[in-house]
Amino acid sequence: MTRIESALMPAPNNGAPSMTQKQLSIGQYLIKRLQDYGVRDVFGIPGDYVLAFYGQLEQSPINVVGCTREDCAGFAADAYARINGMGAVCVTYCVGGLSVANSIAGAYAEKSPVVVISGSPGLSERVNNPLLHHKVRDFRTQAEVFEKLCAATTELTDPVIAFREIDRVLDVAARYKRPVYIELPRDMVNVVPHIGQGYYVGEPQTDPQVLAEAVEEAVAMLNRSQQPIIIADVEIHRFGLQDQLLALAEGAKIPIAATILGKSVVSEAHPLYIGLYEGALGHAEVTKYVEESDCVLLLGAFMTDINLGIYTANLDTARCIYVTSEQLRIRHHHYHSVDFAQFLEALTAAQPQPAVRDIPPTLRPDQAKFELQPDRELTVTRLFARLNEQLQEDTIVIADIGDSLFGASELHIRGRTEFLSPAYYTSMGFAVPAALGANVARPDHRVVVICGDGAFQMTGMEISNILRRGYNPLIIVLDNHGYGTERILHPGDWEYNEIHPWNYAKLPELLGGGAGYEVRTEAEFDSALNKAWSDTTAYSLIQAHIGVKDSSGPLRRLAERLGQRIG
Amino acid sequence: MTRIESALMPAPNNGAPSMTQKQLSIGQYLIKRLQDYGVRDVFGIPGDYVLAFYGQLEQSPINVVGCTREDCAGFAADAYARINGMGAVCVTYCVGGLSVANSIAGAYAEKSPVVVISGSPGLSERVNNPLLHHKVRDFRTQAEVFEKLCAATTELTDPVIAFREIDRVLDVAARYKRPVYIELPRDMVNVVPHIGQGYYVGEPQTDPQVLAEAVEEAVAMLNRSQQPIIIADVEIHRFGLQDQLLALAEGAKIPIAATILGKSVVSEAHPLYIGLYEGALGHAEVTKYVEESDCVLLLGAFMTDINLGIYTANLDTARCIYVTSEQLRIRHHHYHSVDFAQFLEALTAAQPQPAVRDIPPTLRPDQAKFELQPDRELTVTRLFARLNEQLQEDTIVIADIGDSLFGASELHIRGRTEFLSPAYYTSMGFAVPAALGANVARPDHRVVVICGDGAFQMTGMEISNILRRGYNPLIIVLDNHGYGTERILHPGDWEYNEIHPWNYAKLPELLGGGAGYEVRTEAEFDSALNKAWSDTTAYSLIQAHIGVKDSSGPLRRLAERLGQRIG
Repeated sequence: MTRIESALMPAPNNGAPSMTQKQLSIGQYLIKRLQDYGVRDVFGIPGDYVLAFYGQLEQSPINVVGCTREDCAGFAADAYARINGMGAVCVTYCVGGLSVANSIAGAYAEKSPVVVISGSPGLSERVNNPLLHHKVRDFRTQAEVFEKLCAATTELTDPVIAFREIDRVLDVAARYKRPVYIELPRDMVNVVPHIGQGYYVGEPQTDPQVLAEAVEEAVAMLNRSQQPIIIADVEIHRFGLQDQLLALAEGAKIPIAATILGKSVVSEAHPLYIGLYEGALGHAEVTKYVEESDCVLLLGAFMTDINLGIYTANLDTARCIYVTSEQLRIRHHHYHSVDFAQFLEALTAAQPQPAVRDIPPTLRPDQAKFELQPDRELTVTRLFARLNEQLQEDTIVIADIGDSLFGASELHIRGRTEFLSPAYYTSMGFAVPAALGANVARPDHRVVVICGDGAFQMTGMEISNILRRGYNPLIIVLDNHGYGTERILHPGDWEYNEIHPWNYAKLPELLGGGAGYEVRTEAEFDSALNKAWSDTTAYSLIQAHIGVKDSSGPLRRLAERLGQRIG
Repeated sequence: MTRIESALMPAPNNGAPSMTQKQLSIGQYLIKRLQDYGVRDVFGIPGDYVLAFYGQLEQSPINVVGCTREDCAGFAADAYARINGMGAVCVTYCVGGLSVANSIAGAYAEKSPVVVISGSPGLSERVNNPLLHHKVRDFRTQAEVFEKLCAATTELTDPVIAFREIDRVLDVAARYKRPVYIELPRDMVNVVPHIGQGYYVGEPQTDPQVLAEAVEEAVAMLNRSQQPIIIADVEIHRFGLQDQLLALAEGAKIPIAATILGKSVVSEAHPLYIGLYEGALGHAEVTKYVEESDCVLLLGAFMTDINLGIYTANLDTARCIYVTSEQLRIRHHHYHSVDFAQFLEALTAAQPQPAVRDIPPTLRPDQAKFELQPDRELTVTRLFARLNEQLQEDTIVIADIGDSLFGASELHIRGRTEFLSPAYYTSMGFAVPAALGANVARPDHRVVVICGDGAFQMTGMEISNILRRGYNPLIIVLDNHGYGTERILHPGDWEYNEIHPWNYAKLPELLGGGAGYEVRTEAEFDSALNKAWSDTTAYSLIQAHIGVKDSSGPLRRLAERLGQRIG
């Protein structure tokens, strides 16, 4: 449907009624539409080009969550979006917007629907192209940058189409689960359009014959299968298809593996769940179980280097059914324009009956009780083993990258989608700001953050706003005095991997609140963890000293593979 | 000259000798060329796509300066470039590069020649467009972003032209004083090209007849003038024309004003210097002296909103000679392609003789001795007055934005180009990382940083690397518990301007070094300043409590003008 046609269509049900639209200003309409999509909180930092809109936000039902830095606001909004379904960050022109470029790129890479709202100079100020402060090359520089980083962008320079543009861009975010960009010149915030054109885009059209043929082939392949397996990944979560996935898997009794990016997309306590599939980097038994399958149903999977164990995954395309929001491939051929959700639903309805495959008990060992060795120096592996015992149904675990992620892959996540990590884009410093976002989205959940000292030095000070708002996450800093992953990736005594040591446990004194613990042995960690867990008044930070050469098994295996590419 | 022609030309003298070129790898050649331009230090953070180049850097004479965050590394490199003539930041792909987007945009806006070097996936890894970690939309996303933010970019994907591309891009940085971008795939770092083509671009060609006519007209205008004035701005500094400026001004005895962006481009102790011209925002007497001139010689000036006092500047084009690296305008007509330096030199050589204009003593009042009122609560104005007495010839003052900048405009800078501030792009958080950059460039100078608490929360933790490297800047945090400038710009009791208070003076405990002071009265500030000044062992931080409603005069006047545009 073209834009011209769409103007003739009635507003969709999720649009604002036209009578109301006519009385709203552009800023107010944007606020209303964000609420329609469930956005109750917006992260950001004010600045003069966006103050008028900040004023509207503060007077609206939406809660404004200030951050120390814009990139932290971007990470927080990303985590919020992953949990809440959509998130938003609101910043000023260029100095603010360009500071979220990296966080928004991460949201694009990992499909998190974050709405970037940026103020900009008023149209009336732009005549003759003056050098207004914050301008880079010309007035469109920032918009041009976000065209590279977002699934849709708009500059609200024309009141006649402003409402429709807002509708269009928010629809893209909701539909494709990617970030979008809305630039709001400051002299447009209070403009009330005289007419409002509704935006309409039809539901995805799946050709029923294509769908039927694809389902028929998939069912036949499954029904012939003696060793079926599902690999579930992050799109299941982004598109809210967890229940659909379980209906299919439970109906056909197919075991489920997850990827590290999709970790916890199903509860790791589910009887059909067999663990994380990571090629040669993962547990050999899971790898074998997946790779010997004669029918691998890949659902919503990102075929990334890290998901695929740096290309050690050994999946024969001839035995795969690969379904995502972007493509449907069975063996070596493709079906076009088949909606992901509709395919899953139709496949479930067709009730495939593959052979029921045993899940050997060695694949799902009883969680061994952690035996404390009080005086033993902490290691990454045993720290996670102890932490594992502490996790509960309502725990949200957020892992930064490096061993925070790889070590955490061993955690047993009880809930569903309670594990967040930038496991594809792997931007250091995600975790602490993400904890703010997760707490804002789920104030009743306990958040546990694991991050390295290098990552903490990037964004850890966002604890400031966690404290300010009274949240109580537990933050574990794996302190090995440097960029530990790189020490393993690029062996040698490189000075550039060393960082200045901080007394992280003293942060409460700087911030005026929270509790800090510094631990070196298992007994000290155990004691700190117990105290921190029972203290729900504010954040707790555990500075856990880890040997410079210590690392988890998965990281060592990853490093061996990645290290070959360093050059 | 076209690229094809240039390949036929001999290498310029500043290029590497061709015999040597043939033995260098692409990474080594880049390092060599950076040294040719005086780059002795590179700022950044390593990451796996750039580790091979980091290894080469660490083994080279270039010093690698690690930072806590990439954007801090960008600011540090910018400050270093302003002082040193060229700077460089070296980061990994996307998570690193996109994190410097804002600092590099600032360097573009304010003409600071920063070389961005980014690692990227090897060409051999890109076949079939896999989802390698850190990738956003496609492999060129980051390069496309930097095309918007840099004066020249290159991706070193072809050994045959790699050396020439490095030459071309570095030449643009040196010539136009803007940032440039060099992307180095990790499997190209160690490639030794079999042939190396030199890059050659001719010196700027000024048509002697155009130059002669322009100089003749300018001299005639000056010779008729009874009240000449020079307004000197930041391009004088960027292009290293300070001596040329003084030769012209002293020869013709023309008084000099500066802009806030160009503050200290001439020593503020120079007898011809009359102060900062800022339209209605500045001192009325300076404004009157400049605006009643019948011949205003604007040299290297950025006509920005802030330089022009938010367009309160009242300069009659019919009485202006406006010369920059980009244009030469006399009254209402333009001379094309006249080189800035050549024009200045020719104008000086022509010995214009305008009337000698008196500089009334009220324009250059004796610096009033600061009279301490011990129990008086600190105000911004009196804090700067006290600080003013402390400055010495070798002090470098770095002001963040807001009242750190506007208050600092009253400081009397003794040296030349010893005042750094992002006074056009106005990106909060510039100052502390810039102090690292300034100290690396000038280890023998004392650096004084003034920044607000909001800005400090963005990047102040970069003190970590200042401490690590043993520098001793004095950092004054103007603590008014929030975004003070915005409180004044957008009156009202807005929650979004409040930030969580930190005990900034306790930072030394977190970082394990340095000295902290918390002051509220003039006596406390005086005492802390004296102690801090005499303590050269490490950084000192003074947390100066300022009333929530306190502000400098220039900020109040600015806010009145900017506030009208908020909407």
